[in-house]
Amino acid sequence: MRAGLTEPIGCVTEHPVLRSDALPGFGDLVFGGHDIATISVAKKAEALAEAGVVPGRLVATLHDELLAVDEEIRPLPHGTAAEVAAAVTADLLDFQRRHDLARVVVVNVASTEAAAAPHPAHTSLETLRDALDTLPPSSLMAYAAFEAGCSFVDFTPSTGARLPALHELAQIRNVAYAGHDGKTGETLIKSVLAPMFAMRNLRVKSWSGTNLLGGGDGATLAEPAANAAKSASKQRVLSETLGYQPDGHTRIEYVPDIGDFKTAWDLITFAGFLGTPMRMEFTWHGCDSALAAPLVLDLARLTAAAHGAGRAGPLTELAFFFKDPLGEVDHALGAQFEALAVFVRSL
Amino acid sequence: MRAGLTEPIGCVTEHPVLRSDALPGFGDLVFGGHDIATISVAKKAEALAEAGVVPGRLVATLHDELLAVDEEIRPLPHGTAAEVAAAVTADLLDFQRRHDLARVVVVNVASTEAAAAPHPAHTSLETLRDALDTLPPSSLMAYAAFEAGCSFVDFTPSTGARLPALHELAQIRNVAYAGHDGKTGETLIKSVLAPMFAMRNLRVKSWSGTNLLGGGDGATLAEPAANAAKSASKQRVLSETLGYQPDGHTRIEYVPDIGDFKTAWDLITFAGFLGTPMRMEFTWHGCDSALAAPLVLDLARLTAAAHGAGRAGPLTELAFFFKDPLGEVDHALGAQFEALAVFVRSL
Amino acid sequence: MRAGLTEPIGCVTEHPVLRSDALPGFGDLVFGGHDIATISVAKKAEALAEAGVVPGRLVATLHDELLAVDEEIRPLPHGTAAEVAAAVTADLLDFQRRHDLARVVVVNVASTEAAAAPHPAHTSLETLRDALDTLPPSSLMAYAAFEAGCSFVDFTPSTGARLPALHELAQIRNVAYAGHDGKTGETLIKSVLAPMFAMRNLRVKSWSGTNLLGGGDGATLAEPAANAAKSASKQRVLSETLGYQPDGHTRIEYVPDIGDFKTAWDLITFAGFLGTPMRMEFTWHGCDSALAAPLVLDLARLTAAAHGAGRAGPLTELAFFFKDPLGEVDHALGAQFEALAVFVRSL
Amino acid sequence: MRAGLTEPIGCVTEHPVLRSDALPGFGDLVFGGHDIATISVAKKAEALAEAGVVPGRLVATLHDELLAVDEEIRPLPHGTAAEVAAAVTADLLDFQRRHDLARVVVVNVASTEAAAAPHPAHTSLETLRDALDTLPPSSLMAYAAFEAGCSFVDFTPSTGARLPALHELAQIRNVAYAGHDGKTGETLIKSVLAPMFAMRNLRVKSWSGTNLLGGGDGATLAEPAANAAKSASKQRVLSETLGYQPDGHTRIEYVPDIGDFKTAWDLITFAGFLGTPMRMEFTWHGCDSALAAPLVLDLARLTAAAHGAGRAGPLTELAFFFKDPLGEVDHALGAQFEALAVFVRSL
Repeated sequence: MRAGLTEPIGCVTEHPVLRSDALPGFGDLVFGGHDIATISVAKKAEALAEAGVVPGRLVATLHDELLAVDEEIRPLPHGTAAEVAAAVTADLLDFQRRHDLARVVVVNVASTEAAAAPHPAHTSLETLRDALDTLPPSSLMAYAAFEAGCSFVDFTPSTGARLPALHELAQIRNVAYAGHDGKTGETLIKSVLAPMFAMRNLRVKSWSGTNLLGGGDGATLAEPAANAAKSASKQRVLSETLGYQPDGHTRIEYVPDIGDFKTAWDLITFAGFLGTPMRMEFTWHGCDSALAAPLVLDLARLTAAAHGAGRAGPLTELAFFFKDPLGEVDHALGAQFEALAVFVRSL
Repeated sequence: MRAGLTEPIGCVTEHPVLRSDALPGFGDLVFGGHDIATISVAKKAEALAEAGVVPGRLVATLHDELLAVDEEIRPLPHGTAAEVAAAVTADLLDFQRRHDLARVVVVNVASTEAAAAPHPAHTSLETLRDALDTLPPSSLMAYAAFEAGCSFVDFTPSTGARLPALHELAQIRNVAYAGHDGKTGETLIKSVLAPMFAMRNLRVKSWSGTNLLGGGDGATLAEPAANAAKSASKQRVLSETLGYQPDGHTRIEYVPDIGDFKTAWDLITFAGFLGTPMRMEFTWHGCDSALAAPLVLDLARLTAAAHGAGRAGPLTELAFFFKDPLGEVDHALGAQFEALAVFVRSL
Repeated sequence: MRAGLTEPIGCVTEHPVLRSDALPGFGDLVFGGHDIATISVAKKAEALAEAGVVPGRLVATLHDELLAVDEEIRPLPHGTAAEVAAAVTADLLDFQRRHDLARVVVVNVASTEAAAAPHPAHTSLETLRDALDTLPPSSLMAYAAFEAGCSFVDFTPSTGARLPALHELAQIRNVAYAGHDGKTGETLIKSVLAPMFAMRNLRVKSWSGTNLLGGGDGATLAEPAANAAKSASKQRVLSETLGYQPDGHTRIEYVPDIGDFKTAWDLITFAGFLGTPMRMEFTWHGCDSALAAPLVLDLARLTAAAHGAGRAGPLTELAFFFKDPLGEVDHALGAQFEALAVFVRSL
Repeated sequence: MRAGLTEPIGCVTEHPVLRSDALPGFGDLVFGGHDIATISVAKKAEALAEAGVVPGRLVATLHDELLAVDEEIRPLPHGTAAEVAAAVTADLLDFQRRHDLARVVVVNVASTEAAAAPHPAHTSLETLRDALDTLPPSSLMAYAAFEAGCSFVDFTPSTGARLPALHELAQIRNVAYAGHDGKTGETLIKSVLAPMFAMRNLRVKSWSGTNLLGGGDGATLAEPAANAAKSASKQRVLSETLGYQPDGHTRIEYVPDIGDFKTAWDLITFAGFLGTPMRMEFTWHGCDSALAAPLVLDLARLTAAAHGAGRAGPLTELAFFFKDPLGEVDHALGAQFEALAVFVRSL
């Protein structure tokens, strides 16, 4: 996009209504990160080109740029929770210094964790300090980010910054955080169809969803614990938009052959005037990584700008991006888009 | 609903946000009309019960009420256009007098006409007076309604009140009008999905729709002329919401066995980040009459209240209900609902 | 059908190729049974009419006939396994005597049992006699039927007659048995689509199925144990037809609002020439009871005729009707139909 | 496949039941042809690789082989019909001589023609000789092929060899011909689903199909004349398999963005026991060229072997491959596969 080789398709911050000079330009962004995977970014890009996810010509043209990014990918540090957090914080400060960056935004795009059990030590920063080893990985990374003065975005349903102790730390460090769980496919559709049924005063009797995923994400989500965390996140929009919970569940299944794409099928049964039974089905065949990538860029730009504008704590105005947004917010996509526009204009 | 035998499912004016004392209650409504069909309302209701469109027990319970409505159904008058219009006007005035009604709203729910050719005589009321026989039936009925001091709602894509001469008459008679083409199925979905793609800045490459209809409406719409009028009405939402016209068309086909239900299938192909090709399909299996009926009640209540509040001319705030709304309005359902809420509060 | 009020739609034995005088006529059949449900057949029929499963006019017209059937419905006897078996055997003999029937066929249409654990006592009739209380209900009924000299058809995936000891008894009593698991919906489609992919030498990469069921059957099948038994029965056709097991599973979920109908959605991904990835989806919206009922009549007629022709033991020629047929048989529906035609001609 | 770089997926003649030494090996085939398109085979292959139809690595590896094929592609000769036919015949004889081939099979894979009007001169070879300019292009090519002693396969719905005069010529020249219209997608499914409904004695009420095609084929087929020819070919299987014609039609629409793939959606409504209404939908997302290519190889091998075995005239045993097969044949895919197996064993 910087080189004008491709358009910013899927980048919400390039929507005419949201474009703003208050946001850092694509050209101002520098990428780095921690990854448990050892495959290089260049190799991964080639694999994605083979799978039809990204155009082969781009991967070839950008080979050097991809190698440069690889230079900034670190393995996850070893040691105790405290040591890991300290090492990550040091990495982040070093990254910011070397590239002379105004600010850094940490985005969690790791695989979904099992829903973590509440722990008394998580209720205050004071008690947390001595209990870092009780934190789920996503929360430990949020802790490390905050300690480095970086904002944090959770693109997964994992716990991340959603702990009183971490909220306290974010306020002290004056950093912002956003989440949870990027809204890329089936839930995106739900967030416009559910309000439609509500606005028309039609009664949704059942809403059943099946998600077939290949790729690493599918393998992880198919594990019962992660699956439960994800499914809960997916159904929230229905009860909160309709005001009642229809029959039906959302299932996630791992089907290796589907690869980087995802096929979701939903059946909605509803009643019309005098109770006449009707039904709607949809199939969504999308590529999660290609749907998530531009949103990650959007969130980095928006969170950096908010941080720069002195915003600290939860960014509830970013609900547009998430399945399970922070705060008591409207789940209707249109209303979320309005809130986002107001937010951008306020920066 | 008056007797509490059924809930007002599908009635938008019963949505918590829109409920208002400014609207006439269901109990205040009296029904009558002109119909070219000779089957009685009671017989039609029994047929619909057989087809699973309405509950048999309701039809049995309300037999007397249905007979009472039949008393108020008139055949279409014969004669010249001027004679027909005069007779309909007389019927409307008589209906209002006999039932001592504050006001009458005429709703066109006849079959779709072929798109009418423009005619010079339609540009001013003066020239129209001597050229009533050049009016398509829907416009002649609008003329008759206005002459009787009744507001007019066009629930079909037909010309209806959309003529300068009739607009002029509406202003003179101080009556309101609304339209066009009730948004009951496929287009309703388009009005929430198209904005979703736009808000996410995803590029819609093609949008193809197939509508399979049984029943009388299907037979009429499958005729090329009516089909063309209807399809044009259905595609407008895409170009005006997306800002460009994707590939693909909307087709309507008559399939007798589908009866009073309609099955619509749409395929949407779109591009994500870096142009990654993705797709969405949906199937809508709805009963048009059961989706339209509550909207007709809503439109009668809203138009009557607007008329009572002194509103004359086009009611652009009712775009929420129509595929092809009057005026330059937003096609996103959420925005249309907002506009409707503001309108109701203003009454 | 006897009274000519309806056609024998769905009755395979009325197919021109299979019609045969060797089969008992519909007019010769007398119905009775044991049922744990206490609702009368007439009441159940009225409920099915309400749900659009059977025409209301038929239920009304046949009220007396339905009451007559009710006279022949018995509750399940109480007592030890041996006592229950003896009571059922006595009921069957009494039923046959009172109606002066040439033979009786017992068809198991009860809810699916959890897959039963193997038991040493089930390997021979001698050991079984003293261990009747180790039999699952479906097998105890098969035992009782055989003891009464009745043939037995298992329309469910339950164990039924599939035990060495019961096979031995069937041979001794000179009765026939058939099964398992009536092929009414998704698996019926699989039995024609899987051979198509095989005949075209296309490589099926994954086959994933979701079955949404309402009604009592759905509630039972959604229980993990029954679900497992059913799903295993459903996948067998794929591996045995394709010669390999593609990715993907079959899921069953209970969605009360779907009622007596079932909606199955399957996604099949496959590779064409040079490995080109392709896909097929289907949705099946059927009414299991309306699909099963005529097959139960077919199986009663065919099994009675086979019994009459001196056939004893497993009727492998009836594979056409079952998801999980007895014996090493072809799973392609076309081949199964051929085998059935040969069988009928042999009677 | 010769080099073992890929498996013969989609090649029916490699099915265990059909594999036969009587067929020429893939290594024995030499490819050439006449093409109105001027793009080289190598360039076309690169474009198909870009579109995800063929693997890029294969195109790169086989670059020289593709150039070699290009050497054998001729433009369509100019001149009168007689001159064109003579030139094509000469090309074919020269091709056979240069490559020292036992025999040559001409396969028509050109775009579908409008259905040709019958012409008296087409009824006998004698009258045809002086009226070659009345032949549609596909028939002129069949004429040229027969004159060169080559067999002819029509993979399209065009007229091709289906004329008494050409049948006469085939007999005289002792060559075979096959057709019509390769069964690659929607009709392939129909040929297994329609027999399923028939075997189960279920009543199909309506069968409606929509085919969305991109690519050159789509552009041609969307033209009303070609569309009509194609659609007629597609519906034949229903009436001949079911014994009656259900409601509904098959439509073909050109949607450029779909490219080389095709998406077909079919809705089937049917009645079960006592007339209970049920429905099935399927979506087929296939790549016609990748489905057709292996069948073209199969037809070349089978037709060459039949020609070698002295078969002349129509090869009705190849109905398995065609939507609109020659002769009075069974449309059920299973029966067609059986007939094909018998045919192969007879060679």
